[in-house]
Amino acid sequence: MTDPVPGIFVNERRLWDSLMTMGEIGALPHGGCRRLALSPEDKAGRDLFVRWCREAGCEITIDAIGNIYARRPGRNPSLPAAATGSHLDTQPHGGKFDGIYGVLAGLEVVRTLNDHQIETEAPIDVIVWTNEEAARFSPPLTGSGVYSGRYRLDEAQAQPTENGKTVRDDLIAIGYLGSDIPGDRKFKCFIEAHIEQGPILEAENCQIGIVTQIQGIRWYDVTVTGQDGHAGTVPLTLRKDALHAAAEILIALREMGLSIDDDIRLTVGRLDVIPNSGSTIPGTVNFTIDLRHPSEDCLVEVEDRIRQIIEAVATRLGVQASLSPVMSVPPVLFDPDIVNTVRRCTQELGYSHRDMLSGAGHDAMNIATCTPTGMIFIPCREGVSHNEAEYASPSAVARGANVLLRTLLAST
Amino acid sequence: MTDPVPGIFVNERRLWDSLMTMGEIGALPHGGCRRLALSPEDKAGRDLFVRWCREAGCEITIDAIGNIYARRPGRNPSLPAAATGSHLDTQPHGGKFDGIYGVLAGLEVVRTLNDHQIETEAPIDVIVWTNEEAARFSPPLTGSGVYSGRYRLDEAQAQPTENGKTVRDDLIAIGYLGSDIPGDRKFKCFIEAHIEQGPILEAENCQIGIVTQIQGIRWYDVTVTGQDGHAGTVPLTLRKDALHAAAEILIALREMGLSIDDDIRLTVGRLDVIPNSGSTIPGTVNFTIDLRHPSEDCLVEVEDRIRQIIEAVATRLGVQASLSPVMSVPPVLFDPDIVNTVRRCTQELGYSHRDMLSGAGHDAMNIATCTPTGMIFIPCREGVSHNEAEYASPSAVARGANVLLRTLLAST
Repeated sequence: MTDPVPGIFVNERRLWDSLMTMGEIGALPHGGCRRLALSPEDKAGRDLFVRWCREAGCEITIDAIGNIYARRPGRNPSLPAAATGSHLDTQPHGGKFDGIYGVLAGLEVVRTLNDHQIETEAPIDVIVWTNEEAARFSPPLTGSGVYSGRYRLDEAQAQPTENGKTVRDDLIAIGYLGSDIPGDRKFKCFIEAHIEQGPILEAENCQIGIVTQIQGIRWYDVTVTGQDGHAGTVPLTLRKDALHAAAEILIALREMGLSIDDDIRLTVGRLDVIPNSGSTIPGTVNFTIDLRHPSEDCLVEVEDRIRQIIEAVATRLGVQASLSPVMSVPPVLFDPDIVNTVRRCTQELGYSHRDMLSGAGHDAMNIATCTPTGMIFIPCREGVSHNEAEYASPSAVARGANVLLRTLLAST
Repeated sequence: MTDPVPGIFVNERRLWDSLMTMGEIGALPHGGCRRLALSPEDKAGRDLFVRWCREAGCEITIDAIGNIYARRPGRNPSLPAAATGSHLDTQPHGGKFDGIYGVLAGLEVVRTLNDHQIETEAPIDVIVWTNEEAARFSPPLTGSGVYSGRYRLDEAQAQPTENGKTVRDDLIAIGYLGSDIPGDRKFKCFIEAHIEQGPILEAENCQIGIVTQIQGIRWYDVTVTGQDGHAGTVPLTLRKDALHAAAEILIALREMGLSIDDDIRLTVGRLDVIPNSGSTIPGTVNFTIDLRHPSEDCLVEVEDRIRQIIEAVATRLGVQASLSPVMSVPPVLFDPDIVNTVRRCTQELGYSHRDMLSGAGHDAMNIATCTPTGMIFIPCREGVSHNEAEYASPSAVARGANVLLRTLLAST
């Protein structure tokens, strides 16, 4: 097989340094990052990215939900761009790679093309999507969700953040409320590079994951309402303890999840007790459910079972409980041509690879609904993510960026 | 039987109006109050109390943990005062009566003695103890705990509140860091009036509870440490989900509590998830345990069983868990002479009554370790307390204050 771009590789050291420099913004004591969407730390990360892109000759465009598009021009400005990117916001105790890698791998592709003075036919866009993580406000994947038409712009802008503020207020506060209408800018394709966030590639000593689909995700809010009471006076048998009821629901949800199959993911990640005082029997508990599976039929069935579990526990314990759907994204199959291109480029580079599905949601799952889309996974240490200990090696991040470089070149 | 103070009764309307006026400070939408200890609302409540006491001719003294002593002088200033009082701080969703009633019933006694120009031999002190509720910082019963020597003054002042501040900082901020050493001021006796916070008096249609003892209380902090992880990638069987482990502990604690006897009280009132994000498997959960029982032997045994449950769940689920004792107050028997005086005064007034133990902790349980102490309970609606719906009728609060008036007169 003839290599169409012989000798063109990204600069591993420069990409790694960029990741580490970005990781200093909102750095946490154990190596992770806290850059919640639209926070001052997110602004600092965005500002750094924009500066780097301008230094690399890109034009910056901001849309009305704060998505950043950094364009490296092509020979033919009328062609839609080949696009890449991901997000810069993190979980509260996030790592240095989740999202950030996809953004900076895109920047490294631009820098590498500049190094070699390669002009492409179509432009290349490196994109930062707003609020992938939903650690500060829901739903997740806000920027790509609005771009793809899954969410309405006005509703997304009106989402509450804190202290009576909205997403729109926060966009203005950090200087990233642009005027472009999300979705008006069309792309030829979208390729997102990302750490796997799971253990498979590392366990199989495999260098690149060719992502063929993303499992479906459903998010729910649950409220359990019992009755506040004095911890010292109300006998256990007479209590309407919302936290005890929530605990029973959690146990039952996990048992049900284990009974489905190995692909089921069911997580209660957020739980708030009200009033949350040691000597008061809790009257109210709010919690979230994050449900994922590759099969839409399975998601529908499990949602039914979640509803039954919550109703059964509430009835048995004499409390009220409600289940509110927050988000529902069906499983997404990526574009076969894009997937084939990623696989071919990986083979050209001689990297070991395998096809796989993504357990995590990504901006690519929204973009795939309106643009030919694919993803490139690289292994991360022990599959750990959403955790300060998250790590991918310098050679792994360079390999993923090399695949991205070739895939974008093949797509422009 | 001859009535030693014929025709002397408190002013029911004035006492009720005082309760309702105090209840406007930190008022909540459903009739309750939020006046967390040493907050701006607590300061406003203290300021109102101090103004009312000065208008009633009392001298105000503040000690170094913020306890307020309002003294109505007696004929003989060298005699120790007969003391009464309680606390003005509330739970986050507290009511208008818990604590406040004992303080304002004391003020109403002073006002009634003024109305009738009755001079007592010994002074009468009406006291506001600092931070009974521990809704903002632990341990509870701070003011009476320092007064009685259960806690060290310097350690109590150094307790953290929020944002790197301490109890001492907050006392200074609200203007209630006095110079008197807590405990230096000795009392002849201490009588605390309080709502029952339980259902017994109302259920038995009984007007006054003669409190003979308070059950023991132990508080613990529990930390469960698993591993943060991505909700979409880590299979259920490979998770170290701290919230799931906490839920299993909560269920097992309740089952154990139910197996003891009807007197056991075991409550997890506060639970915090870290990082508390919907798509992150929780790596850490902190929660409190509030344990109460009339028997010290039982408390010792239950503490052992709590420790065993936590260790067993942690070992089985592969997480870490620690149990830290925060407070231990053994059951308290009140002074038999004081109890007899309260009972006699209640009988003189013709009120129906019964002896009972207190399920809740009160400042009186600390004061009883160094001063002859007793308590007067009045019924509250449905036994509801630590709840906005908390309610005692105007006639019930007046009856309790009449018993307090007579008991104090008999003790000066």
